Amino acid sequence: MSWTLTAADLPDLARGATLLGTGGGGDPYIGQMLVERVLGDRAITVLDPDDLADDLFVVPTAQMGAPTVMIEKIPAGTEPTLALRTLEAHLGRTADATMPIECGGINSMIPLIVAAETGLPVVDADGMGRAFPELSMETFAVYGVHGSPLALAGERGETVVIDTGDDDRQMEWLARGVTIRLGGVGHIAEYAMTGADVRRTAVPRTLSMALALGRAIREAREAHRSPFEAIAQTLSTTLYSEVRELFSGKVTDVERRTTEGFAKGRATISALAAGDDSQLEIRFQNENLIALRDGALVAIVPDLICVTDIESGEPITTEGLRYGQRVRVLGISTPEMMRTPEALAAFGPRAFGLTEEFVPVESRSLAPAGSA
Amino acid sequence: MSWTLTAADLPDLARGATLLGTGGGGDPYIGQMLVERVLGDRAITVLDPDDLADDLFVVPTAQMGAPTVMIEKIPAGTEPTLALRTLEAHLGRTADATMPIECGGINSMIPLIVAAETGLPVVDADGMGRAFPELSMETFAVYGVHGSPLALAGERGETVVIDTGDDDRQMEWLARGVTIRLGGVGHIAEYAMTGADVRRTAVPRTLSMALALGRAIREAREAHRSPFEAIAQTLSTTLYSEVRELFSGKVTDVERRTTEGFAKGRATISALAAGDDSQLEIRFQNENLIALRDGALVAIVPDLICVTDIESGEPITTEGLRYGQRVRVLGISTPEMMRTPEALAAFGPRAFGLTEEFVPVESRSLAPAGSA
Repeated sequence: MSWTLTAADLPDLARGATLLGTGGGGDPYIGQMLVERVLGDRAITVLDPDDLADDLFVVPTAQMGAPTVMIEKIPAGTEPTLALRTLEAHLGRTADATMPIECGGINSMIPLIVAAETGLPVVDADGMGRAFPELSMETFAVYGVHGSPLALAGERGETVVIDTGDDDRQMEWLARGVTIRLGGVGHIAEYAMTGADVRRTAVPRTLSMALALGRAIREAREAHRSPFEAIAQTLSTTLYSEVRELFSGKVTDVERRTTEGFAKGRATISALAAGDDSQLEIRFQNENLIALRDGALVAIVPDLICVTDIESGEPITTEGLRYGQRVRVLGISTPEMMRTPEALAAFGPRAFGLTEEFVPVESRSLAPAGSA
Repeated sequence: MSWTLTAADLPDLARGATLLGTGGGGDPYIGQMLVERVLGDRAITVLDPDDLADDLFVVPTAQMGAPTVMIEKIPAGTEPTLALRTLEAHLGRTADATMPIECGGINSMIPLIVAAETGLPVVDADGMGRAFPELSMETFAVYGVHGSPLALAGERGETVVIDTGDDDRQMEWLARGVTIRLGGVGHIAEYAMTGADVRRTAVPRTLSMALALGRAIREAREAHRSPFEAIAQTLSTTLYSEVRELFSGKVTDVERRTTEGFAKGRATISALAAGDDSQLEIRFQNENLIALRDGALVAIVPDLICVTDIESGEPITTEGLRYGQRVRVLGISTPEMMRTPEALAAFGPRAFGLTEEFVPVESRSLAPAGSA
């Protein structure tokens, strides 16, 4: 069933998208401001994947770049629609809808800017089911829809169309090069597909899930209930049903650098109790990739590793990590379609240069989050 | 009048194009091999600019990259035509002819590969009147035809279309970024224009001039006449009528590095006679930019600074410079359309970060070449 989204929903959506960003994905609050400015008091129509006509033409839109640059270089706001129009002109076909390629972080918002500007509906699905750092890390690609041709727009009206055939990694490599030369941020339209393709290749209902998560955290907080219980309850009826508390403690070390268009680094979280010297180490490339508790693996990509405020449950991004923060780290299971051998080849541990094998977060003997 | 060019002409054309490359432009002998392979015993039609219909649609083709990479990464040969076809598809218009953007170095040959593959004629003109390192350094741009949209093709069939409106420097910046990510070499189609545009913005008859120069050097050598006299005589009836000998001597120092997609450096040439401690210093960015004799400027970009073998007149590129070579360095005047204030803003000394002002080579008190 289709539903509508208004400016009043955006703060909750931003909160939920930050959680699904697993530390990365870019700051959705900047995207939220851009949507608010264009949307005013109108509403955006959101289409359920099950309702799409088979031949509906869907053109996803997104931002690419390092989150550390995005928070300093705010886009004009017209770039995502320019990217969509450029791809339409290249393909000689007009979009019927747009869609996120990524439901975590700012890319939950970019298609809403396009929808607000053009009046197009947005499809409630995405191609990452979270946030990932590279354009080739898409369930779309895993299940046979390729990213090319990709259209890229810059803040001075520059447009670039890249076509690398079936080679989505080469597409990412070239688009990243252009984005770096545009100053670190570019806006894109890519993975154009039909409604039938969406049902076959996209992770369904992740936009509504992000909104529900953000709302549940806020409402629990307002009612003085546990936000972590609310997160677990909200996810229990979705494809992300397993939630684990990986660690609680204090941030005692953060190492972060922006290199090759990415924010890379690691964070250490130490137990709070006197005499407890256990630690959680998290490594990230834009997004959190792996969590090791006292050297033992407790969660690994593509499962979600989410750092949140220990009390309020507010999600914290890698660029927001600070020494001394009290945090609770959650591990969340991803849908089965993101854990197949093909999917793990595209965005599993090895795709990030990790030597550890994928282990489902729910297979570790940890207490479900919210149960304490 | 139109004329035809066959494989037998290519060695002379390569020699002349190397001279006009002023040290850079990439090695035309590699281009020559690629043309020979495709052309066989057929002929290419070359159109004189004066004969073009006003609305003839001309799509120039070229290679971009650092010459130091080009000699190690030989193209498949199909990329330039793919670039042309990509630009045609983007513009929705079919090319009637191709043309060099640069008459010096390998870019004298790239349009001939396209002509041999497609049967299109080649226009006897170009947009640099020599070789320059950047795509924005074009008489086309100086006189109002801009480079965008540019199509770029890679050796694995990748295509990229870049549109930066009137901003040719931003086009160069983005295309260079893509070229670096393609491994250092890309093939392009850009500066699409009409026959009327060619007459207004291109340097005329530079392909035939390169061929005539290469032939004159060879014939003089075969007849045991001075190749330098032959060069001066050939150029006397062209727009490049002033030729000066800047220095003769031995290469005593070469400093060269490939950085940011360019070959940059300097060479020192020392007098041969015992007791003569005079020196010529040449600085280059792909092409030779400035020649200083004992610290005094004797020739500067856009005038041509050509290093040749002291006896045979064979031109030597910056990547071919070796300690101990005996060389004769020529300065050659450029056409008036390349010396206007607008032209000097695009490719005069300041465009290369030089602080020296442009001084016409013929205004220096040096003996005409070939007069000794």
